Amino acid sequence: MKRLLNCLTLVLLLTIPTAMNAQYQPNWASIDSRPVPAWFENAKFGIFIHWGLFSVPAFGPTARDGVGVYDRYAEWYWQKSTDRDSKTYPIFAKFQDRVYGTDFKYQDFVKGFTCELFKPDEWADMFKQSGAKYVVLTSKHHEGFTLWPSAQAWNWNAVDVGPHRDLAGDLIKAVRAKDLRMGYYYSLYEWFNPLYKKDVNAYVDQHMMPQLKDLVTRYKPDIVWTDGEWEHPSETWKSTEFLAWLYNESPVKKDVVVNDRWGKETRSKHGGIYTTEYDLVHDANSTGMTFTHPWEECRGIGSSFGYNRTENLEDYSTSGQLIGMLIDKVARGGNLLLNVGPTADGRIPVIMQQRLHDIGDWLAVNGEAIYDTRKWDAAPAVTKDTKVYFTRKGSDLYMLCTEWPTQPITVSGISKAGRTTMLGYKGTVSASTSGKTVRITMPAVTPGNIPCQHAWVVKLAGVL
Amino acid sequence: MKRLLNCLTLVLLLTIPTAMNAQYQPNWASIDSRPVPAWFENAKFGIFIHWGLFSVPAFGPTARDGVGVYDRYAEWYWQKSTDRDSKTYPIFAKFQDRVYGTDFKYQDFVKGFTCELFKPDEWADMFKQSGAKYVVLTSKHHEGFTLWPSAQAWNWNAVDVGPHRDLAGDLIKAVRAKDLRMGYYYSLYEWFNPLYKKDVNAYVDQHMMPQLKDLVTRYKPDIVWTDGEWEHPSETWKSTEFLAWLYNESPVKKDVVVNDRWGKETRSKHGGIYTTEYDLVHDANSTGMTFTHPWEECRGIGSSFGYNRTENLEDYSTSGQLIGMLIDKVARGGNLLLNVGPTADGRIPVIMQQRLHDIGDWLAVNGEAIYDTRKWDAAPAVTKDTKVYFTRKGSDLYMLCTEWPTQPITVSGISKAGRTTMLGYKGTVSASTSGKTVRITMPAVTPGNIPCQHAWVVKLAGVL
Amino acid sequence: MKRLLNCLTLVLLLTIPTAMNAQYQPNWASIDSRPVPAWFENAKFGIFIHWGLFSVPAFGPTARDGVGVYDRYAEWYWQKSTDRDSKTYPIFAKFQDRVYGTDFKYQDFVKGFTCELFKPDEWADMFKQSGAKYVVLTSKHHEGFTLWPSAQAWNWNAVDVGPHRDLAGDLIKAVRAKDLRMGYYYSLYEWFNPLYKKDVNAYVDQHMMPQLKDLVTRYKPDIVWTDGEWEHPSETWKSTEFLAWLYNESPVKKDVVVNDRWGKETRSKHGGIYTTEYDLVHDANSTGMTFTHPWEECRGIGSSFGYNRTENLEDYSTSGQLIGMLIDKVARGGNLLLNVGPTADGRIPVIMQQRLHDIGDWLAVNGEAIYDTRKWDAAPAVTKDTKVYFTRKGSDLYMLCTEWPTQPITVSGISKAGRTTMLGYKGTVSASTSGKTVRITMPAVTPGNIPCQHAWVVKLAGVL
Amino acid sequence: MKRLLNCLTLVLLLTIPTAMNAQYQPNWASIDSRPVPAWFENAKFGIFIHWGLFSVPAFGPTARDGVGVYDRYAEWYWQKSTDRDSKTYPIFAKFQDRVYGTDFKYQDFVKGFTCELFKPDEWADMFKQSGAKYVVLTSKHHEGFTLWPSAQAWNWNAVDVGPHRDLAGDLIKAVRAKDLRMGYYYSLYEWFNPLYKKDVNAYVDQHMMPQLKDLVTRYKPDIVWTDGEWEHPSETWKSTEFLAWLYNESPVKKDVVVNDRWGKETRSKHGGIYTTEYDLVHDANSTGMTFTHPWEECRGIGSSFGYNRTENLEDYSTSGQLIGMLIDKVARGGNLLLNVGPTADGRIPVIMQQRLHDIGDWLAVNGEAIYDTRKWDAAPAVTKDTKVYFTRKGSDLYMLCTEWPTQPITVSGISKAGRTTMLGYKGTVSASTSGKTVRITMPAVTPGNIPCQHAWVVKLAGVL
Repeated sequence: MKRLLNCLTLVLLLTIPTAMNAQYQPNWASIDSRPVPAWFENAKFGIFIHWGLFSVPAFGPTARDGVGVYDRYAEWYWQKSTDRDSKTYPIFAKFQDRVYGTDFKYQDFVKGFTCELFKPDEWADMFKQSGAKYVVLTSKHHEGFTLWPSAQAWNWNAVDVGPHRDLAGDLIKAVRAKDLRMGYYYSLYEWFNPLYKKDVNAYVDQHMMPQLKDLVTRYKPDIVWTDGEWEHPSETWKSTEFLAWLYNESPVKKDVVVNDRWGKETRSKHGGIYTTEYDLVHDANSTGMTFTHPWEECRGIGSSFGYNRTENLEDYSTSGQLIGMLIDKVARGGNLLLNVGPTADGRIPVIMQQRLHDIGDWLAVNGEAIYDTRKWDAAPAVTKDTKVYFTRKGSDLYMLCTEWPTQPITVSGISKAGRTTMLGYKGTVSASTSGKTVRITMPAVTPGNIPCQHAWVVKLAGVL
Repeated sequence: MKRLLNCLTLVLLLTIPTAMNAQYQPNWASIDSRPVPAWFENAKFGIFIHWGLFSVPAFGPTARDGVGVYDRYAEWYWQKSTDRDSKTYPIFAKFQDRVYGTDFKYQDFVKGFTCELFKPDEWADMFKQSGAKYVVLTSKHHEGFTLWPSAQAWNWNAVDVGPHRDLAGDLIKAVRAKDLRMGYYYSLYEWFNPLYKKDVNAYVDQHMMPQLKDLVTRYKPDIVWTDGEWEHPSETWKSTEFLAWLYNESPVKKDVVVNDRWGKETRSKHGGIYTTEYDLVHDANSTGMTFTHPWEECRGIGSSFGYNRTENLEDYSTSGQLIGMLIDKVARGGNLLLNVGPTADGRIPVIMQQRLHDIGDWLAVNGEAIYDTRKWDAAPAVTKDTKVYFTRKGSDLYMLCTEWPTQPITVSGISKAGRTTMLGYKGTVSASTSGKTVRITMPAVTPGNIPCQHAWVVKLAGVL
Repeated sequence: MKRLLNCLTLVLLLTIPTAMNAQYQPNWASIDSRPVPAWFENAKFGIFIHWGLFSVPAFGPTARDGVGVYDRYAEWYWQKSTDRDSKTYPIFAKFQDRVYGTDFKYQDFVKGFTCELFKPDEWADMFKQSGAKYVVLTSKHHEGFTLWPSAQAWNWNAVDVGPHRDLAGDLIKAVRAKDLRMGYYYSLYEWFNPLYKKDVNAYVDQHMMPQLKDLVTRYKPDIVWTDGEWEHPSETWKSTEFLAWLYNESPVKKDVVVNDRWGKETRSKHGGIYTTEYDLVHDANSTGMTFTHPWEECRGIGSSFGYNRTENLEDYSTSGQLIGMLIDKVARGGNLLLNVGPTADGRIPVIMQQRLHDIGDWLAVNGEAIYDTRKWDAAPAVTKDTKVYFTRKGSDLYMLCTEWPTQPITVSGISKAGRTTMLGYKGTVSASTSGKTVRITMPAVTPGNIPCQHAWVVKLAGVL
Repeated sequence: MKRLLNCLTLVLLLTIPTAMNAQYQPNWASIDSRPVPAWFENAKFGIFIHWGLFSVPAFGPTARDGVGVYDRYAEWYWQKSTDRDSKTYPIFAKFQDRVYGTDFKYQDFVKGFTCELFKPDEWADMFKQSGAKYVVLTSKHHEGFTLWPSAQAWNWNAVDVGPHRDLAGDLIKAVRAKDLRMGYYYSLYEWFNPLYKKDVNAYVDQHMMPQLKDLVTRYKPDIVWTDGEWEHPSETWKSTEFLAWLYNESPVKKDVVVNDRWGKETRSKHGGIYTTEYDLVHDANSTGMTFTHPWEECRGIGSSFGYNRTENLEDYSTSGQLIGMLIDKVARGGNLLLNVGPTADGRIPVIMQQRLHDIGDWLAVNGEAIYDTRKWDAAPAVTKDTKVYFTRKGSDLYMLCTEWPTQPITVSGISKAGRTTMLGYKGTVSASTSGKTVRITMPAVTPGNIPCQHAWVVKLAGVL
């Protein structure tokens, strides 16, 4: 009997040697056992980029139209302008007819995707200056159009048609030259791909899987950020097979980070980091967004990921709001993946540059309280009214105030004040201990010596 | 033992019943055993249509450029304008750069393929009036762009992009309403399809085969006219498998006609009708074009199949030359598939209408000597100087003169004159018999009573 | 008193010396006294060219739409597609909306006027080969758009916008290199020019007059072919002033030919040659078209002057019809100005090339009976059923038969047969005299020795 | 003799009665005697809008190209991209060739001037909210293209071509509905107008003068803001004739404001308000910009008036800088006309909205120190290092600090402190008098109670 087993073992060794060496097996238990690479949790702030044919009409409803935030996504133009059952169909269709005419089809936008002003080095500079540590670009959105010369998307990619340029490749090169990490968003499904609609299995085997592997092997991304997973379980998408390959064999197996969008059942459960979107949590069992697992919130600077030309100033978050968001996510253990929507001619709208610049200015002073920190479990529960947040790093505690405290603040859970300072401020911060609480009084800064705008950080060194 | 065999037989019967009922097997011996449906040999004259993205630049070299006829094909624009090794590359590239600019790619022609004036009923009228009995449209040329909504050519077909119209479907409906037969040209290979270039087997399985079968089942064409077969043997293309399906199972199994372009080794050997192209015979062993097998010559009215805007009058065959060609092919047992090249806005150029009209006028008088006839084996061998041709039908012999005979003509091989008439002419034709020859003298027709232009037919009734 | 007169004379001499030297005064009596330069009446056959922005939509109704010939002019697109009172407005508007959309305006056609295939040397070759002796191009049609860089039509001419090329200048150079004469059509009015609509006098002074003089001095045309005169009397247009300048001072004063379209009262009365258009005579007092004054019929090969893409073969005159027209006009003392309508990309449609070529072939044999001839006043009155026409030159008479005479023809008015031949035919023509008539019998030509198609000429040498 | 004079006087009275009633004569002495309407000096802050065909390429050099500010004007695209002698020609030409191709001409940009997202009501809202009191739109820039349906610019205006919309008319209606004043920029010269280049007098009479009067009578603008005057003296432009008409007869004679750009000799000398441009003073005799005459500085938010797509955040002035500019101009007696450059599709770039919004927020608090104020002649001379400015209104003095004063400020020239407050701040401001000076100490405001950003105003009530 033993011999027989040995024989069988031998056979297995001979026939699937890679599997023997493989650390990860194509099942969730095995896949989920891989820790999220540490760089991700330390990075905290990344830039999301939604760019594609939808950047040509660059249109979506806004708050003025009285629709909710998830109905304002300009990158959904194709689907929304053709799906007569969509509640925003009338808005999209009216725009389409008025501006482009009734005989126009979404594919005709290709000729407007010119990208003649695309300067990846300038983009990379902006991202770097913003304080972001990583970048995620839509290599392919649900429209199926790829920003790289994908063999599976012949004549439906940015090299064959439109700008005739490898947008995905040119950007990753420039971004990495600035020592930022970069990865790609990739939609598993494609709204209108006939193969997908007819036979999802053939689609996965012939189209999606070779395309996704090509993306990985060609550019070696630090992140594989999937989406469009909800119509099928992960088994249909062969997600664990792909991830086993990614973790065991791909050139990025060591450091690659993936998310949790691998099948209709996987969000907040399987894969890599958990993801929220405009604070939407896809796991009904989650209480708020207090994952113990690494997670990331993604959202636009405005109400859309893809550029929406009809958004006015009122539709954009202010710099103060965005800095508050970053603090909120980080204090709760998450990352913020803040989206910019480039234009069809290849620019980052200057208002978005402004927002990134302001965040960068703030992080230049206060980055210490963000990067490499972790959630402080002893902090008061964060609510929507929270104005005082905490992060920790080593023995130091950071108190981040998104509104200037006009009254002293009492911090519970620590029993000594340590060396108390305000980041970027040379004066002293007074702190007094009383039992297990510390009482902090903000200094009388004026516009003449204030270190930054929008939010202020008090560091309590060595208190943990 | 016998029982066992019976059992096995039963199993086979149950599991692959269609194969048992199938008349044709996927091998050339079986496929070639199917006779060419009779309608084809009786039809004699068909219209070929080359239409696609190449109709947008609609450019190719002409005789003025000093290049041979096979280098004047405008439908090869994409290949010729990008293949730096092609001898006509400089001509195409110069045009491309001058007219469209250096950043322009072939795919960008899509927006010029508008077809706004395409009126299939008018086309069908013209074809009907020309005396043609069938029509063959390029459903897909080597560019891979399809004129029908092919799922395999998503965003690379005439419904998704360009005219947003099912050109192939709209035309077949109109043509059939005129009681003409219609089929499709289909290129097996695609110059630049990445899947084809990387893995021809995957291309055949995933792309070509489902696409071709969709074409057949969707429109039920009378003809499947393949091309682009020369880079691989028929085994690679799985041609016999397709043909077995076509002959056994497809909705057109009874009447469909195919040609001989099924693999690098098949022309003039396998499949259906043999094909020549501007008199090029793809079988070196053939002596001239004297196949005993049904065959068909295809060619343009000018020097190109796809419309070439730079062709002037001198580049077009005259009506007389075209009628001469038809006679020559028919007298040698073949059909003529005469090509028209529609414009990007959907019209048959009027000069082509003129040629079709003139052929139609001639056939209205002389069709009796063309349709349903067969080669007369006793005729003198046809050479390039031949001016007198023969066809036969039943016991009747037709003498077709492409130049007016100013001297009496002696016909050998028949021993009686029968009732000798000139088609369309009321007067008498004098004929005298001398042994095994008949001597015919043309009547003194004037412009006032001449039945037709270009060529004249003497019928010798009951002489065979 | 005499001194005073002398003084006044002196003053006049000093102040208007050119007028003293001038042969022609700015009044019709003087202007009309100038004979039409002899070259014109000898030339007989000219080519008219209608080219402009209307060549971009290249659309007009056809006979299929049940409208008369004067409603089929494609060059009237702008007016007809916007004038809701026009009976063809629905046809034009429907086309406009369907193909270009409801927000499209005529001016937007500029971008489609590309002319990238315009090869003036090839055009000139075609015109030369057709047997034409002169060419007239629309330098500006009623749309106001000029084919030359007119300072008065800034950003509304072919150099500033559209093809960015001096079409008028490039063509005249090429045409003259072939020893053909060339001139320009010029519309006095402009449908939508705001200055014209508001103040015709300012329009004439500031716009029309300097523009027309620029055209003359810049290119020195052999013909100034005006049109669009009907809304105002010649006095408003200052026509006699212009003509006095043209005849006295301009660089073309010697040989220039003008027509009769100089004001609402001038057709068939004043100016140079009288003009008809699709046989329309603008003088109700004329009986048929039997002017004793030099005249010219203009018309298209089809039913439109500007190219109409929707015209099919049935809409074009046949070569035989056109040759018949030429004979008809010449026999009645006129010229034929046959129009071609180039495409927006700069080509003469091949069907038009075919027609010109056939006329050229016919004239190569029969030109002797056309060029330099005059009307034979003794000929039977021409009616619409006439098949036998006459021209004369010196003592020779030419009988032109547009249908092959199957019976002998009796010619009255001459009393000897002279040397009777058929142009291009080597055999003899039998003629017999009987009193003041000559009876001619056509020879028994066959397709083997016929000199030409469409019409045949018998020359009676020395009979006048 | 006296009677005769009387008679003549009578005749004159009868023939030119308007001149007799006219308040202003066509000479500078008379024209300049008209006071600038009071509304203008009280308004202080206006919005300039440069919009035209230049908004389509929307390109100009930036500081990164190492060129000075006057070489970064994107609205000069046509001139700079064609004038080979311009030092920035290579930058423009390289862009033009790369992006549009070598055969492209400036006029071809017309098709890109679509304005499909132009919502004049939204623009007006933004202007209103910014605190601006008036708006000036380029009705016609040097390119000659008009934003209204000018009869003099047929087919070269926004109604005939491009957006097919009366941009000038639609905007003035919306702006006035918000109770803002509005006027038009109008370029006297046109770079490439052939009539201008050939005969400036004819240009002035036939083109410019009727066009400008049409603009005035059609829309009744509050401001006529001319430019492009420098190639000719005002006499050539007939400027005083126009102004006499404008002041005496036009529908806006009462309240219209004009500027000083009426001829090469007029800036800072004649006409209405004096103008500076990016601080450029066109009068060499001026010391700095200390006009006693009403004046106005115009400039972009970035380095260009016309939208320049290649400007990044670094090229835009910050809100703080702009508020500083406004203070600087007002403190020196001037107005600020701050320019926005809309896009070709009709939007105000959001970064510009942000700047306007921030100015509006500041003015909401501090407008009292800006509107209706006048220069305080006793203030210290303004230099480029000035951080403390003064304005006055009635007996009140305003001290505007563009940097937070960390030390007490001593104000000379007043001898009492009056009631000293900080605009928008509820706390007290301490002030002490010492002889003819007042010493002011800023309160200890924190981020928690600061009334505004960027600049802070101390009001000294009743001190003058």
